[in-house]
Amino acid sequence: MSALRVHNFSISLDGFGTGDGQAEGAPFGHAGERLHEWMFATRFWSDMAGGPAGSAGADHVYAAMHGPGIGAEIMGAGKFGPPGWQDDPDYKGAWGANPPFHSPVFVLTHRPRPSIEMEGGTTFHFLDTSPADALKTAREAAGGLDVRLGGGPSVIRDFLAQGLVDHMHVVQVPMLLGRGVRLWDGLEALEDRYTIEAVSTPSGVTHLTFTAR
Amino acid sequence: MSALRVHNFSISLDGFGTGDGQAEGAPFGHAGERLHEWMFATRFWSDMAGGPAGSAGADHVYAAMHGPGIGAEIMGAGKFGPPGWQDDPDYKGAWGANPPFHSPVFVLTHRPRPSIEMEGGTTFHFLDTSPADALKTAREAAGGLDVRLGGGPSVIRDFLAQGLVDHMHVVQVPMLLGRGVRLWDGLEALEDRYTIEAVSTPSGVTHLTFTAR
Repeated sequence: MSALRVHNFSISLDGFGTGDGQAEGAPFGHAGERLHEWMFATRFWSDMAGGPAGSAGADHVYAAMHGPGIGAEIMGAGKFGPPGWQDDPDYKGAWGANPPFHSPVFVLTHRPRPSIEMEGGTTFHFLDTSPADALKTAREAAGGLDVRLGGGPSVIRDFLAQGLVDHMHVVQVPMLLGRGVRLWDGLEALEDRYTIEAVSTPSGVTHLTFTAR
Repeated sequence: MSALRVHNFSISLDGFGTGDGQAEGAPFGHAGERLHEWMFATRFWSDMAGGPAGSAGADHVYAAMHGPGIGAEIMGAGKFGPPGWQDDPDYKGAWGANPPFHSPVFVLTHRPRPSIEMEGGTTFHFLDTSPADALKTAREAAGGLDVRLGGGPSVIRDFLAQGLVDHMHVVQVPMLLGRGVRLWDGLEALEDRYTIEAVSTPSGVTHLTFTAR
């Protein structure tokens, strides 16, 4: 059975996965890039984005789990683009002509549109459906591989609440955002369904892995 | 200058320091004892409470910082007793005749009462005043030693918001309480004022230390 996996999902100590005030050019709102600096310093990131070779240490080891075995991604409308992207019929996502997914990507939106084929193997599909139905569709497209759940926080929370997530990697960054969208709301006793491991690393972040029991 | 220190303050992954439904015999509400199991397994705890000798490992090392150098404690009304204790003129706290503080303890309450001298060096004093004034009073009583801020979460949050805390040790427990009293609300950019370290340990908890810059 293909698993549903979350990788490299970064939150503040106070649990925000996205800051306040998402906008064009500010996909994480007032959080800016700060939730992801740990990742920019890894070999995983430099291999993908170029620049000086990053560290191959613990943060890299966790980050590099993001790609292997994935055949499709599911994401929320808020990850695909800034508020209001649905009003632009030519909008093609926040990643340019060659997005880093290289697989079918299923965007959850109440205003679906025709699929968009991008360079590099990424095709965006738009679904107005339940988490369970979206997962079923993504699994069929993944050709036996796993499905990645890409966020944002409210989408991950919805899939967790419905018991659909098999594996989750959350990275807790030592900062307090104070406002934004929380990951953890309404998930009392989640630990009953997962084995949780915590590993802090020299960069200051703590990697939390949730493995379904 | 005597420092204001927080020690062994345990929260869930979703940031709750106290569960929902505090009551007589349930000081942490629906959280029960679960936020503190990591501590019950330490040598620090067994030395104080008896029972089989606990582990002298990492959790003990952090926990044992609780006592040394402390000359007074400040706590909120919700730590001193269950809701409504102010209506019982004979109430003397949740710890029996010999409380584990062995120092002056300043209880913040809007309904102060005369001081209560207990066995073992603990005296409870009751203050209806601001955090800064309570700290001034506790410092005078501490005789040059440090002051411990004992919680609960809303009291720690108030003192943090006013920039009064010099050192804080928070223990994050891998569980989700879903409801209760949050520690982190309203503390955006706290990291600007503290050096934060995270250390996860084999018991599964993560020790976060905040050292004022």
